[in-house]
Amino acid sequence: MSEINQAPIGVFDSGVGGLTVAREIMRNLPNEEIVYFGDTARVPYGSKSKETVLRYARQIERFLRTQNVKAIVIACNTASAMALEELTAEIDIPIIGVIEPGARVAAGTTKNKRVGVIATAATIGSETYTRCLKQLDPEIEVLDKACPLLCPLVEEGWLKDPVTDEVIHRYLESLLQQDIDTLILGCTHYPLLRSNMQKAVGKEVTLVNPAYETAVELGRLLEKEGIANQGNREGKPCHSFFVSDAEQRFNDFANTILPLDVTSTKQINIEEY
Amino acid sequence: MSEINQAPIGVFDSGVGGLTVAREIMRNLPNEEIVYFGDTARVPYGSKSKETVLRYARQIERFLRTQNVKAIVIACNTASAMALEELTAEIDIPIIGVIEPGARVAAGTTKNKRVGVIATAATIGSETYTRCLKQLDPEIEVLDKACPLLCPLVEEGWLKDPVTDEVIHRYLESLLQQDIDTLILGCTHYPLLRSNMQKAVGKEVTLVNPAYETAVELGRLLEKEGIANQGNREGKPCHSFFVSDAEQRFNDFANTILPLDVTSTKQINIEEY
Repeated sequence: MSEINQAPIGVFDSGVGGLTVAREIMRNLPNEEIVYFGDTARVPYGSKSKETVLRYARQIERFLRTQNVKAIVIACNTASAMALEELTAEIDIPIIGVIEPGARVAAGTTKNKRVGVIATAATIGSETYTRCLKQLDPEIEVLDKACPLLCPLVEEGWLKDPVTDEVIHRYLESLLQQDIDTLILGCTHYPLLRSNMQKAVGKEVTLVNPAYETAVELGRLLEKEGIANQGNREGKPCHSFFVSDAEQRFNDFANTILPLDVTSTKQINIEEY
Repeated sequence: MSEINQAPIGVFDSGVGGLTVAREIMRNLPNEEIVYFGDTARVPYGSKSKETVLRYARQIERFLRTQNVKAIVIACNTASAMALEELTAEIDIPIIGVIEPGARVAAGTTKNKRVGVIATAATIGSETYTRCLKQLDPEIEVLDKACPLLCPLVEEGWLKDPVTDEVIHRYLESLLQQDIDTLILGCTHYPLLRSNMQKAVGKEVTLVNPAYETAVELGRLLEKEGIANQGNREGKPCHSFFVSDAEQRFNDFANTILPLDVTSTKQINIEEY
């Protein structure tokens, strides 16, 4: 197996949310090594402009290249919406975001062609999910809603909490009234609220978690490009984690999400890239 | 009147919250001109480390100096807690934060010597309010509580909302059980929730808004240093506004808070300073 097959996958997010994508990659592609970057000094991206998020994404891409990654996953819906197109045109290694994989599954799932999307204000404002879904099937009606309070609620740890359920109910009410049968969880934090969401929308609505679909898509892409890791390394893959702010809070959160102990996260100054 | 008296005051915050301080300066020192900077590309600071917030504050101080400010107000509790001491030692113009003015009023207000403080996780973690209050009166007991959800609720515009009231109740419950008679609103967003807070704590608890106290303190400092603007300019002072992310959202928020129309905000790349 050549050197490039053994190179790591770069995975980045505005903070900790992308760990739900990293988790799916670890589960589904257990031979692949991950270099994760969380931009914890500038989190969140979801309330910021395209220009700013694109500038941040370019800095992160330059950092990840110093780690010799063979492919990049933008494990953040906002950054996928704001920067995937530009980065794809600018770099010479495979790069995928979380939006297209999620949209593809939703398009294949919906029966009544009414798909709901919940995400940050920036992702919703970009209309990337809508464009993606319409491209896959022009008959699909997209009903979307920005949910700025859900990330703070997850980060505060109020997962099983009546306040969170009430906020979810408030955000989803208008989508449900419009008879959606499929709901895309368009922010990497939202899978952590999956059971609350399912309770709010009822069994008839299918929830789509782009994290899982992204991992599957990544696997296909690596195979197609002939750069998948075939797994003849010695021992388990050794993932590494980088952040732009202090490591401790990131490690605490990571250890509640990932099936491994994260202890050696390194802090870097991302503004230098 | 010399040139320095007519120079502007630099006022900065992680985003829009510091506008509540700018508003008090405009009301109380109507001759003074303000150069406001909101770090909207990196907001919020309240979940970040001292090292990162200090680095951001130093960049902002360097930017404000290019605007020839005669004094600086750190209109952000987190940045005051993390950076005031260092900046005071490093620069040669007067600089004040919002914490000491608020603490001084609270120390003068409390009768039972039990003062509550609510603020971001970073401000509470720094224990700056506690140190400040204890220095003013060692007998004061400080009961504090980080309230990370309140800023997102304000920014979502859910000011008069049962969800916000429930979150406030949840955060304040433990403080009230400990019999506080004074509560410092230790984040610049919180004065916008003043009526919800007063309802939650009852009439017996006095709310302290450091924004007003900071403006009064600034006035005293300018007089003492002989650099106050005595007001013989022609027309009204011409305030200017700078942000690190797109202006529009800032302008929308600013126009709900300030007694003037904010339309000519400029975006700058703060990472270059």
